[in-house]
Amino acid sequence: MRIDQIETELSIEAEEKRGPHPVNQQVSRRLKNIEGQVRGIQRMVDEEQYCVDILTQISAVRAALNSVGMLILRRHIDTCVTNAIKAGGEGRVQIIDELMSMLSKARL
Amino acid sequence: MRIDQIETELSIEAEEKRGPHPVNQQVSRRLKNIEGQVRGIQRMVDEEQYCVDILTQISAVRAALNSVGMLILRRHIDTCVTNAIKAGGEGRVQIIDELMSMLSKARL
Amino acid sequence: MRIDQIETELSIEAEEKRGPHPVNQQVSRRLKNIEGQVRGIQRMVDEEQYCVDILTQISAVRAALNSVGMLILRRHIDTCVTNAIKAGGEGRVQIIDELMSMLSKARL
Amino acid sequence: MRIDQIETELSIEAEEKRGPHPVNQQVSRRLKNIEGQVRGIQRMVDEEQYCVDILTQISAVRAALNSVGMLILRRHIDTCVTNAIKAGGEGRVQIIDELMSMLSKARL
Repeated sequence: MRIDQIETELSIEAEEKRGPHPVNQQVSRRLKNIEGQVRGIQRMVDEEQYCVDILTQISAVRAALNSVGMLILRRHIDTCVTNAIKAGGEGRVQIIDELMSMLSKARL
Repeated sequence: MRIDQIETELSIEAEEKRGPHPVNQQVSRRLKNIEGQVRGIQRMVDEEQYCVDILTQISAVRAALNSVGMLILRRHIDTCVTNAIKAGGEGRVQIIDELMSMLSKARL
Repeated sequence: MRIDQIETELSIEAEEKRGPHPVNQQVSRRLKNIEGQVRGIQRMVDEEQYCVDILTQISAVRAALNSVGMLILRRHIDTCVTNAIKAGGEGRVQIIDELMSMLSKARL
Repeated sequence: MRIDQIETELSIEAEEKRGPHPVNQQVSRRLKNIEGQVRGIQRMVDEEQYCVDILTQISAVRAALNSVGMLILRRHIDTCVTNAIKAGGEGRVQIIDELMSMLSKARL
């Protein structure tokens, strides 16, 4: 067994011990909240609450989704984009094309 | 029993028969879908799917929320805003102020 | 000449004296500023200034455009929409359809 | 004169010959158009044209600004961000922090 294989095995073990990535935990927690907020809006609609209050809640959920999106985008740039840029070549161009097209659609 | 009580009872009965407003039903159905989409994103995060695919799903949920918002806004304008404008006076100014401030925050 | 005709003539005269609507003056002033801001961005690009500073300026112009849009939307609701709602009938439905389609495109 | 000085001088000369970066030319052309569009809106306001048509034009200018922003963002990522990521260290973290904060404000 080569030394780098040992390292890989160790890091897989570490991975298993430490569970999901801390960003994922944060993202999961926020998505749970967003799910609850969506159910809250449903309740407001069922109870025929005031439209403007419902619309304000919808804006709040949108803002919450955006901040989850920023966490995931950050991780994408810190990992995939960074690795592709370091590797260079066609992969670099492709990942930046993909990033730009996603940002365009997400309406920068 | 006074005549207006009878009318009220009749209209409550009518209300019970006709169930919730059709826009509410449409809004409820869409909110249920959005809840499912949010759970889908959670699954993608748990399964460590590709960040860009997750971000694309987040954009889709945002678009779905916007279209629910438009349904509710339409009903608000068709009912509350229309009534306040017909009644005129200070109520008219107030409801338009409130509408504008909500649209500003919701980032027109 | 009836008294209300006199009033109308007086108010037309007042209109001529007072020049454009005060909202129009405010909108014009802001559009002049926006034009200057756009030229400022052009200068930044010519001088090869830092991209992030240029992007920050672009966001500022977008915010300025939005606030001009809100002034115009407010006036539209205060005048055309209000009149159509008071008049009722098909015109009311049409103007609200038009408003909603415009708000959708302007991405609520 | 050292060989790298000669190279620098040659590349400065090349720079002078080739004039501004092609992206800058494209950006300049679009900013000129946007300036014209803003003046067009001013004319519409002066001529008291229909509010909804003015609002549609404002949306068009906003879309044009966004596409200029995307060109500049692309160049920023292709140059500054790419270089900082290749260099690594604190500079990499700083430039990604700056990018994220700009994208947040520009409302992803």
